[in-house]
Order: sequence, then C-alpha cells, then structure tokens
Amino acid sequence: MLESFIPVATDSDFPLENLPWGVWEWREPGSIHVGVALGEHCVSATTLQAAGYLQDLPGAPSGVFSHGRLNEFMGSGQPAWRAARQQLQRLLASGEGAVRDDLELRQRAIHPASDVRMLLPAEVGDYTDFYASRQHATNVGVMFRGAANALQPNWLHLPVGYHGRSSSIVPSGVHVHRPRGQLLPAGAAAPVFGPSAQVDFELEVAAVMGPGNPLGCPIPLAEAWSHVFGLVLLNDWSARDIQKWEYVPLGPFNGKNWATQISPWVVTLDALEPFRTALPPQTEPEVSAAEEPGPGPPTSWGWEHGGMTVSMGWWAVRTWVGRAEAAIAYWSFAQMVAHHTAGGCSLRPGDLLGSGTISGDTPGSRGCLLELTWAGRDELELRAERPGGLLGRRRYLEDGDTVVLRGWCGGGGGKRIGFGRCEGKLLPCR
Amino acid sequence: MLESFIPVATDSDFPLENLPWGVWEWREPGSIHVGVALGEHCVSATTLQAAGYLQDLPGAPSGVFSHGRLNEFMGSGQPAWRAARQQLQRLLASGEGAVRDDLELRQRAIHPASDVRMLLPAEVGDYTDFYASRQHATNVGVMFRGAANALQPNWLHLPVGYHGRSSSIVPSGVHVHRPRGQLLPAGAAAPVFGPSAQVDFELEVAAVMGPGNPLGCPIPLAEAWSHVFGLVLLNDWSARDIQKWEYVPLGPFNGKNWATQISPWVVTLDALEPFRTALPPQTEPEVSAAEEPGPGPPTSWGWEHGGMTVSMGWWAVRTWVGRAEAAIAYWSFAQMVAHHTAGGCSLRPGDLLGSGTISGDTPGSRGCLLELTWAGRDELELRAERPGGLLGRRRYLEDGDTVVLRGWCGGGGGKRIGFGRCEGKLLPCR
Ligand SMILES: [Ca+2]
Ligand SMILES: [Ca+2]
Ligand SMILES: [Mg+2]
Ligand SMILES: [Mg+2]
Ligand code: NI
Repeated sequence: MLESFIPVATDSDFPLENLPWGVWEWREPGSIHVGVALGEHCVSATTLQAAGYLQDLPGAPSGVFSHGRLNEFMGSGQPAWRAARQQLQRLLASGEGAVRDDLELRQRAIHPASDVRMLLPAEVGDYTDFYASRQHATNVGVMFRGAANALQPNWLHLPVGYHGRSSSIVPSGVHVHRPRGQLLPAGAAAPVFGPSAQVDFELEVAAVMGPGNPLGCPIPLAEAWSHVFGLVLLNDWSARDIQKWEYVPLGPFNGKNWATQISPWVVTLDALEPFRTALPPQTEPEVSAAEEPGPGPPTSWGWEHGGMTVSMGWWAVRTWVGRAEAAIAYWSFAQMVAHHTAGGCSLRPGDLLGSGTISGDTPGSRGCLLELTWAGRDELELRAERPGGLLGRRRYLEDGDTVVLRGWCGGGGGKRIGFGRCEGKLLPCR
Repeated sequence: MLESFIPVATDSDFPLENLPWGVWEWREPGSIHVGVALGEHCVSATTLQAAGYLQDLPGAPSGVFSHGRLNEFMGSGQPAWRAARQQLQRLLASGEGAVRDDLELRQRAIHPASDVRMLLPAEVGDYTDFYASRQHATNVGVMFRGAANALQPNWLHLPVGYHGRSSSIVPSGVHVHRPRGQLLPAGAAAPVFGPSAQVDFELEVAAVMGPGNPLGCPIPLAEAWSHVFGLVLLNDWSARDIQKWEYVPLGPFNGKNWATQISPWVVTLDALEPFRTALPPQTEPEVSAAEEPGPGPPTSWGWEHGGMTVSMGWWAVRTWVGRAEAAIAYWSFAQMVAHHTAGGCSLRPGDLLGSGTISGDTPGSRGCLLELTWAGRDELELRAERPGGLLGRRRYLEDGDTVVLRGWCGGGGGKRIGFGRCEGKLLPCR
C-alpha cells in the first residue's frame, strides 16, 4: 500500500493509488489549475511543473499543465500519463521530502478541496451517448414494444449510440432548470408547449478520450483501450415527455440537450486496472470488431468489489434509490471506440463517450426513474438509507430534488478507487 | 450598384454587395487570415485591422481578426458585423484611395483566390442537422412508409433535428473516403462489415451561429434571426446502407459522421436581405414558437431569383443532376434556433445548423440520390449541361465522383449574391 504525507482517510475515494485528474479554480477567479485529487486535497500539476517537477513526460509538449484544461495532456498518450502518475506517486509519498519539506511550495501546490471550484476536466469537442446496457435496453424495449420485441434487431450486433450536445455538458455542483418543451399529453390530439412533467436522471459511466484519430483512419479494436484516458460518472438529465414526442425518426434532441452532468475527476485506466473484469458473453459480436480482435477476450472495467449508486436528495434527506454495476454493460468502451471510428469518424482528446444508462438485473438496480417506476406506472418509495420511515414517493423528479451519482471499485479490505460525486439539483423552470 | 477598385466579373458570386467571410492560409503554412471574398480575391481583415483599419466595431473585442478563426467576430453580434461590412464596402470602393493607393498594404492584404487554401470559417463547437424540407421528408416517408403515413405525427409541429458530429466537418476541396461499416444486405439474415455500397450526398444550407445563448436561457423567436451570422452550403455525405441498419431507435450515427462538408465563405444575412421571401404557409405552427411570435410572418432567406444546384463530376465532365430551392424549406432558421434553445440548450458562436436535405416539388429538384433514384430503384442519367449524349448512370456515388454544390440569389438583371462552391471528391475505401 502506498502512503502519502498528505493524510488520506481509509474510506476516501482518492487514495494515492487513484490520483484522478481534474481542473479547478483556486481563490481568485481565473486562477485555473490542473492536477490530481488526493484525499481531501487537490494537488496542482500546474504549480509543480512550473516549479521544475513533471518535466519528462514522453510525448507531452512542454508546459502541458499550463493550459487550464487537460485536452493537451489527454492527447499526449499513455506513456505521458504513466510517467506523470509515477512521478506524482513518488513526489507525494510519505518518504519523499522534495515537496513534503518545501512548505512554500506546498502552500501553492496543495489546495484544500473545500477551497476550490471544480470545472470541466476538458473542453469536450463532441459527446456521444451509447446504449450499452442490455438490461436497460431490454427494460425500455419491454415497456414500449413488449417482451417479444424488446431488443431492436441491430442491438446485439453493434453498440448503438447517438451524438449528444457538447455545449450543455456541466460539471458536478451546477444546478439545472426544468426544461420547457413541446409534448403530447396522454390522450391529447395536438401537442402543447410547457414544462416537462417527466424529468429523469440516467446513471452512466463515460470514457474521456485520449489521442484519438485523424478523420478517415479508424482505430482498431486492439488499440482502442490505449485511446481512453479515463472514466467519469455521467448523469444524462432527460425529459421523457419531450423525448417521446420528438424522437422519431432522428433520435433524442431537446429531451436531452438541456444538461448533461459529469463528475469532475477523471479516474485513469491505470488506477482501475486491478478491477478489470470480463464482459458478459456476446452472442452476436460486432462484425467490424470481430475482424480485428484485441488480445484476449474483450474486457470491461467493472465494479467487481464495489458498485455504482444513485441517490436522490429530498427534504435534505439523502436516500439511495438505485444501484447498478458497470460490469453489466454489454459493450466495452474499447468496442464503442472501434465502432465509432469504423467509418472514419475522428475522436479528439477530451471527447466524451457515455455508456448509456446502466441497469442491473434486479428492480432495485435500475439506473433511471423511467425504469424504476416503469414509465411512471409505479411510485418509487424514498426511504432513508437505514431502515426507517417513508420519506416520500416519486414517479419523476420534483423541483428541488438533488441527484447524486457515486461510483467506486474496491473498498472493504483493500483501498477504494472512487469517482467522487456527480451532483446536481433540479430547479424550477426559469 | 457598388463598384470596387478590385475587378469583379459581372457573374461573380462575390461582388462588393456580398463580402462573405472566410478563413484561409496564405503562402506559408500557419499564416492564417480572416476576411472577405471580393471577385477573385480574398481581402484580409487581419492585415487591414493590424494596419489600423476596422478598429471601431461595436461589441467586438480589439484584435478580433487576429485569432485565425471567426468565432470571436461571430460572437460579437450584429452591430459589429454591420460596422465591419460598411467599413469594408467603403474601403474597397473604387472612389476610396486609402487602401487602393497604398500598394504595399494592397500586396499584404489582398490575396489572389488562387494563392490561398480555404479553411473552416470557425471552430464548430456543435453541429445540428434538421429535416426542414417538407418535400424531402415526404419523399423519404413515402419510400419507407407509404403515401398515407409519409410525414411523422410530429413533423408539422416542430422542426425535427438531431445532433451531428462536429469533428468530421471539413471545408470544400477536401477529399473524403468511402466508409466501411456494418450493414444488412437485402435478404441477408445477419449483418456484414464492409464498404458502403450506397454513398450519397445531401444538398443543404446551414446557418452559422452568432452570439447564441447561455445554458438555460432560450432565444425567443423574435430575436432568433439576430443570432444567425450567415449561411453556407452543406453537403451531408451519407452512407444509406449503414444508416438504415443502425438508426433505430436513436437516429443516424456512423452513416453520417464520417464527413460533412461546407462551403468556406459565410454569406451574411445583410447580403441576403434583398432576397428575403415568405415561408410557405405553416398549417400547424410550432407551439413554442407560436407563444412568442416574431414581428410579422415568419420569413426565410429564399432563392427567389436564383437557385441551388448540385452537380456531379464524372469522367471529368461536370453534369447537373439536381436543383432545389431553399425557399422551399418549411421551417426557417429562426424557428430552428428558437426550437433548439426552447428547453435551455445553449448555442455558441460558430455552431452549425443544417437545414436538412432541400428538395423541390419536381423530380429533377431533389437534393440527394436517395430521392433522385427513389432508393436505388431507378437509374439517374448523367447528361452534359448542354443537350448531348449520355455520360453515365448512377444509383449511388461511385469512387472518383466529385460532388459540387452551388447556390446563389439574384443574377440576371441585378448582381448575384453567391455562395461559391462546396466541392468534394469521393475516394475509395482507405
Ligand atoms: Ca443516456
Ligand atoms: Ca441531412
Ligand atoms: Mg443529457
Ligand atoms: Mg454528414
Ligand atoms: Ni485522402
């Protein structure tokens, strides 16, 4: 086990084994730092690099941490990521005095998490949302088309996805407003324009892209993982009534483009490596992926010893409403990357690939209210974490509700590699 | 009529009344200029501003033309656009000596079009493609669902659109490669992976956004036009067989994200103002738009005295294959802007809003091969522009075909306000 001179609680999401990357504003507006989380602190790679550390990062341009965003570092590739991780683990280790004993540098480089405002980790050029959980796709299919036709004919053959809206991606902590839109009330002959009555969350994991590819040059499956910088949690805020009326035939639009929220710390694949698990068996592997198989069976970064949970705040009481496991995703991010680029589409550093809502096998492990309440048919009871009284009921979200996504691997006996929080509060229509 | 000291042919797309904006590389790689087209020349606003001209642009930051892209200028708003247009029309007029007689400045500021390489006019944060031509939507609907159900229930109530891929937007002149992808051959039980056999073009017009809106703050219809900087031609390259297999239920993805091509000169709304025409009557106006009506009836920028044509090169012989009129679009760009932001989605300077394929009422005025050949049922005969022999036949594009979009307003008695060319050649699979 690694120990740092910065204290880290045993149940922290951010031990020295994690070191997820993020971007924050410190003290003065406009003072932007990039760096890593460690316990309850943010360690500024911007300051450390300006002080002479983190100089030899193979493939990274000099001053790669001076841009106030991580796109350039994400684009530098695995050797740079690994060198930075190793150098930071060494610099921050309890036995290493270079930073530990330089109190002036510590003041400038190590910021209490309570003093910073987290920003988006990268400028997102393009955001894609997939539909990679078989349980989620099946549940939605059963609801709208019946059990016999739950999965569309293409679903087992390729990772279905659509292009989302990058301008409305916001970091954890930002409030969102209930959207207005055009919708067709049940039984009505014509649509009306008004507030959505079916605002929902979607529990997702998203890959943040590394180097990516030039237009016209697909990324083979065997190389796809090396283009993924890391993972974040993603809440794909959705207005189901707007979506339902608008989405045929070209897909979701205003139902989903008003806010997409992500956790601010990007957990690297190197930190997640101990928790790698096999994908579920794929009966109809994607044809393009099958042409260029990777080394060994396709694998996913799973939540073997942990899980992902979504909690919903209500009257200031936090209540777990669901739990899902990302290992349950049918398609891996490597397969999504290979499929996304198979026709030549280019992915750029910082691009975001959402998994789609992740749902487990049990009713309690569904990743959105649409599934948890079976399209509003059932009421969901909100109860305190420990057995206790009923706190409230929901079909869809009410104004003032806070949705918190959390996710982690490990814990229990070993250290936990956590994702922190993706938290957002739904405010009334503006 | 305005006359410049720079010679402009009478049938030029770019008289002094036009002055469309673009970005180009001149001589050395990395030497990027922004400015306007005038006849066969590019006039560098970058050089003119550095020389002391174009200083007073209300709302524009100083040095707005020094960034090698037009996003900052697009974001500055109508007063800045109009001031720049007026100052350039005055500076370039035949009677004005300031630039005309400064030969050293002319050398540096006025570049022959044949010496430059045109780039994208802006960094496109997000690209949306609409479906705003009733004839196109009807033709596609009849093909796939029959005449009785041609238009989906939502089509007359809102401008249907979907999010496209901004990383694959390329300027005119760039070659594109036939994509590979997963597709289901007719009669096959399982999909295969291979080259698309149904590569198509789509003739579209696209709005390039000006200031736009913060997340959560819709743009009312009455203000929507003031957020449009100008228009370009857009070829939405499409692989119909990939699209057909993948698009249910979340919309087009790999069928369209391998290349979207635009003309490099953005024609301003002020240049198009004389050609403004009324929209066709809307029987079911969009509800959200109807809530906040603009001044007077909704209007479109039409092609009252001109048209839009698509030509396809074949054996080095250019052949007109279609002609469509943008005035035929059912929804205006103002309505698309209002709808796009109605739920709070933010639009940013340089964002692109495609009209969707524009088709006219007659078989010859359809804007894509899917319609021209009725999904490959009929062969399209390629003939020379003047009556002559048959040059070839097409169902879909063949390797080596060049697709050229052109568009203009006016001409005949008055000056022509043209869009230049959107030209791309289809190369074989890489
Ligand atoms: Ca989703
Ligand atoms: Ca299109
Ligand atoms: Mg969303
Ligand atoms: Mg396209
Ligand atoms: Ni090429």
